Amino acid sequence: MNDWHETEIRVRYAETDQMGIVHNSNYLVWFEVGRSEFCRARGFSYKEMEEKENALMVVAESYCRYKSPAYYEDVLTVRTKVEALRSRSLRFVYEIYRSSDETILAEGETLHLVTDKNKKVRSLPTNYKRKLLSDEVAEENAFPANQAPS
Amino acid sequence: MNDWHETEIRVRYAETDQMGIVHNSNYLVWFEVGRSEFCRARGFSYKEMEEKENALMVVAESYCRYKSPAYYEDVLTVRTKVEALRSRSLRFVYEIYRSSDETILAEGETLHLVTDKNKKVRSLPTNYKRKLLSDEVAEENAFPANQAPS
Amino acid sequence: MNDWHETEIRVRYAETDQMGIVHNSNYLVWFEVGRSEFCRARGFSYKEMEEKENALMVVAESYCRYKSPAYYEDVLTVRTKVEALRSRSLRFVYEIYRSSDETILAEGETLHLVTDKNKKVRSLPTNYKRKLLSDEVAEENAFPANQAPS
Amino acid sequence: MNDWHETEIRVRYAETDQMGIVHNSNYLVWFEVGRSEFCRARGFSYKEMEEKENALMVVAESYCRYKSPAYYEDVLTVRTKVEALRSRSLRFVYEIYRSSDETILAEGETLHLVTDKNKKVRSLPTNYKRKLLSDEVAEENAFPANQAPS
Repeated sequence: MNDWHETEIRVRYAETDQMGIVHNSNYLVWFEVGRSEFCRARGFSYKEMEEKENALMVVAESYCRYKSPAYYEDVLTVRTKVEALRSRSLRFVYEIYRSSDETILAEGETLHLVTDKNKKVRSLPTNYKRKLLSDEVAEENAFPANQAPS
Repeated sequence: MNDWHETEIRVRYAETDQMGIVHNSNYLVWFEVGRSEFCRARGFSYKEMEEKENALMVVAESYCRYKSPAYYEDVLTVRTKVEALRSRSLRFVYEIYRSSDETILAEGETLHLVTDKNKKVRSLPTNYKRKLLSDEVAEENAFPANQAPS
Repeated sequence: MNDWHETEIRVRYAETDQMGIVHNSNYLVWFEVGRSEFCRARGFSYKEMEEKENALMVVAESYCRYKSPAYYEDVLTVRTKVEALRSRSLRFVYEIYRSSDETILAEGETLHLVTDKNKKVRSLPTNYKRKLLSDEVAEENAFPANQAPS
Repeated sequence: MNDWHETEIRVRYAETDQMGIVHNSNYLVWFEVGRSEFCRARGFSYKEMEEKENALMVVAESYCRYKSPAYYEDVLTVRTKVEALRSRSLRFVYEIYRSSDETILAEGETLHLVTDKNKKVRSLPTNYKRKLLSDEVAEENAFPANQAPS
């Protein structure tokens, strides 16, 4: 559907547990950082959509496969893309790598329902939908071949 | 001003860090559990005050002294009381013990400002104030000496 | 395989996010509380297995389906059971209910690999395995095959 | 004693609470990010000191004054410096600003004891101490008293 967006984070001490590795719940927080940055990179303000359009992307499902542990101070690359975009729901997929050696640490996905502030399902505002799909939108908006500037 | 309220919690695995002990930030979460339970024990619903009275108790200061580490699965006693109650602010103090051996693990305090949802300072609603002070209120309401039942 | 174990928790203020509901990552922490309590209820000390037997149950996969939001101060019932127990891995499943009205809020599962402290896969210590299986063990032990009632 | 080190972080959705602002406990996590980056900027690896030198910097006290709320997606500047460095303890101080408008959001400090992995107090390894003090060390080393330019 569209390309991966990449963002980097550094593992915080508070994210480790007594096993000496990152606690499993933090990957869901990192997935969220990934989709925040994905949206921002496409000129899509999740904050604004929530405040001004009364549209929330509530998490309906989360899945994570932990393949190799992350350690304190590791720099990680969170790769994010939209896998399925319907009128009232969308699915993000993620991969997390250790940046230094490109070891894959985790992969996962989250399914979101679009709701208003009263948790009633609604449609994703059109202008936001276009931005999430910006690769295709870009194509649509490009000069049609016969109108290209010469 | 009034008596300590006590509540118990059990240390969660997620609350530990790679030092093998509880991460320092969790004590602020436990202090919050302490004051939630303190309020509930006095018939004071913090949730309701926030929703129906438009009064929030925003944290303005926090202090914690960590005296001995807490470990996974420890059962802890959080002791909470109100130390100072003014019209627009209040101070809670806390002590955290390991229940099994009564070792004191931490002590601290938080200062709160009362605000509305727009973060503007306001007064604590009177009925909530009475409940926080319930010991004294109880005294005030008690039969005046000269009207006591004989 | 065996019965559900139930434990109660109360939603903490710190677990909510600006949507006014509990943040999705906390369900993984609650699943962990569920399996800690499941183990304890069967006389299985996870803490001791980690420290004395050098056996860790590393999370390899997590899945959660969020069906209805949880709110600050809600009392929740976390139901936990072991779904599959192999020599080097096991799967826990969970259901989370609001205790007051029995609304189901979430269901999920976690897959664990048994490793030593160096993250090398190993077998679950036998005495711990027996405890996790205590229902069936009880059944198996009840009538050795050659003495079964006919 | 020495200059402030600055590092930037962006507020995560998971760090907000139902008041619509960042939960107070996260500032302690950000202080920790500040001192991690402070150490790294001076060629001091906290991770390595913990693993190879058996020296931990356990938090003995934390204090935070919350002056103005932080919001989801805010970019914050965490300013960190060492305020007092003794043989077995040290104090970090912090300031947190919103980068866009330079509003100060919080200031605080943490006191640390240096211990070994068994939580016994010990001295800070000399080479790490020098790095934390690098400004002064630089000055001291610049001109030995008897060779100072006149």
